[in-house]
Amino acid sequence: MTFDEGRALFPVLERFAYLNAGSLGPLSRPTLTAMEERLRFDQEQGRGGHGWFTSVLELRARVREELARLIGASPTQMALTDSTTDGCNIVLSGLELGPDDEVVTTDSEHPGLLLPLHVSGARVRVAEVAARPTANALQAILSCVTPRTRLLALSHVLWTTGQVMPLHELKRETGLPILVDGAQSVGTIPVEVGELDYYTVSCQKWLCGPEPLGALYVRDPEELRVGIPSGFAQKSLEPDGRFVPAEGAARFDSGWLATPSLAGLEAALAGAPEWRFERAAEMAALCRAALRERFEIVGDGEQSTLVSFIPAGDAAAQAARLYDGGVIVRDLPGTGWLRASCGWWTSGEDVDRLLSALG
Amino acid sequence: MTFDEGRALFPVLERFAYLNAGSLGPLSRPTLTAMEERLRFDQEQGRGGHGWFTSVLELRARVREELARLIGASPTQMALTDSTTDGCNIVLSGLELGPDDEVVTTDSEHPGLLLPLHVSGARVRVAEVAARPTANALQAILSCVTPRTRLLALSHVLWTTGQVMPLHELKRETGLPILVDGAQSVGTIPVEVGELDYYTVSCQKWLCGPEPLGALYVRDPEELRVGIPSGFAQKSLEPDGRFVPAEGAARFDSGWLATPSLAGLEAALAGAPEWRFERAAEMAALCRAALRERFEIVGDGEQSTLVSFIPAGDAAAQAARLYDGGVIVRDLPGTGWLRASCGWWTSGEDVDRLLSALG
Repeated sequence: MTFDEGRALFPVLERFAYLNAGSLGPLSRPTLTAMEERLRFDQEQGRGGHGWFTSVLELRARVREELARLIGASPTQMALTDSTTDGCNIVLSGLELGPDDEVVTTDSEHPGLLLPLHVSGARVRVAEVAARPTANALQAILSCVTPRTRLLALSHVLWTTGQVMPLHELKRETGLPILVDGAQSVGTIPVEVGELDYYTVSCQKWLCGPEPLGALYVRDPEELRVGIPSGFAQKSLEPDGRFVPAEGAARFDSGWLATPSLAGLEAALAGAPEWRFERAAEMAALCRAALRERFEIVGDGEQSTLVSFIPAGDAAAQAARLYDGGVIVRDLPGTGWLRASCGWWTSGEDVDRLLSALG
Repeated sequence: MTFDEGRALFPVLERFAYLNAGSLGPLSRPTLTAMEERLRFDQEQGRGGHGWFTSVLELRARVREELARLIGASPTQMALTDSTTDGCNIVLSGLELGPDDEVVTTDSEHPGLLLPLHVSGARVRVAEVAARPTANALQAILSCVTPRTRLLALSHVLWTTGQVMPLHELKRETGLPILVDGAQSVGTIPVEVGELDYYTVSCQKWLCGPEPLGALYVRDPEELRVGIPSGFAQKSLEPDGRFVPAEGAARFDSGWLATPSLAGLEAALAGAPEWRFERAAEMAALCRAALRERFEIVGDGEQSTLVSFIPAGDAAAQAARLYDGGVIVRDLPGTGWLRASCGWWTSGEDVDRLLSALG
């Protein structure tokens, strides 16, 4: 598949300079078709019938396998979820932390991680990384670790600045359990889970799947308690709720997922080109360079595909104005920044349109 | 809308004697159309754009209002969730029970309630109600209450036998917090939450919405901790995750929900006829009477729209055989029973086909 062929798959790119995959990725025609076909299939089979249930379980298994492959994991280590937030809640609820425990995070995390950290009951220590060179991040995070630290919990790519955090170095240096918010990484930069313990995946952003869909990698499913059980958690159940967990990480599945969405995701995963990481990085670099000529770029996030910058005037108003002009970027609340997300489908013309719309 | 007009809305009823709304309800043409239109709308708007987000929040508000109206609640008392299981997890995670606390449930609950009860850490006391006349249920449940009881947690309609539990009497007699699994009630029998504390709603069963969609009623949202926060939980957030909760029960929203599914649900809610409860009860009575002539009916669930019975031979094999013959019912694992679900769309012919397929 050439770039032109790949790009032509996305109807939304015909209308918009769509630069917001960091919120929700574009959906391709094959993805939309798969969704519509699955909707019809469900009706033909009689949603709720015996054969239909079997087909749903098969679909889930196929998607689980593809998602595992993406990050170098085994399917038995992958749970299907609604979102990265879901994944963070599942992990934190299973760890049973208390007020004597500490977790270390960064000062630029998404609510989807921060909120579960807070409700865990543990003390949250915040490492200051976002306003400093990324090269200092490792030391800043390590300096927050104490004998009470039970978990490191942070993004692979900071959603605000695009900075890439030194996950594997953190794991190596501390040996502590590490929970990674992979919302801005999987699908747009290479990811290998390696020795990491928990890694959340968003399917609706860089993987171009329908929303809401996510996944959670759990290195050793037997070692984490099921804290938020869905019907998939158990393979057998006593009348008082005691249960034998399902095999592997499927025990953490967040529940039923819309079949049209799963079918759309399967098509999206199959349609991603081999050259996606190189192309996305190239377009992010181009976008960053073009913006830098006229605006301040925030952070040294060159290794990611997010480009945040400081526009003239109010960022939210600018995002709304750009939208009316056919350019979709997002403002980052409370910062005054705009963020452009560059994917493998992004063209130089998209970047030109952004610059031109910024006036 | 006449019965014939209403029934004609469901394509699946043209192919199957569909008697499994207790798992997943049938989807009507207006619902399917609304889903397809929303999918197209999302693409035209550019999923992830500013105006699109606003339209999603408006859709959520409309659906929340309609669901609240259904059970005599205020929209500020309703959270949007994925499922009844989700709702049970949200409540249990918020109550912070421990090993010194007790919860009382029944011996015929769904995993979606039992699993969250178990992981809560509280001692689960199980009242035996399913093999006895429903008139004895109140006393059986009350006899399990002790000074350590912190919660009553049970179904409105038992998913196995269709027995209707005396919720309001339990609340009156004990004054204890009560969590109700409403999976088999809302949409098919009249429901008023009244003095109940927590009530879960399934949108994908008797309400004929797409899956997975649910709702959770919380009588006093300020009194329940947010235990499984999604991005909707907060209206402001500190860098360490401390947050000011969103207004009302929206703080318990389980996260992003698929917009085509929400649009489909909105159409389904608008399309339900006024006479639905009477008609569903009538068809359940007809189905029960017809089955009773040849099979043993399980339990005295005459007030509900579920009809469970003991078929000849293996129930799972029978369900599969019936499916091949165009009749959709479900087997209840571990019981040897089949369950027929009768809705307002059910016809006498559906019941005849069931009886005839049973041989």
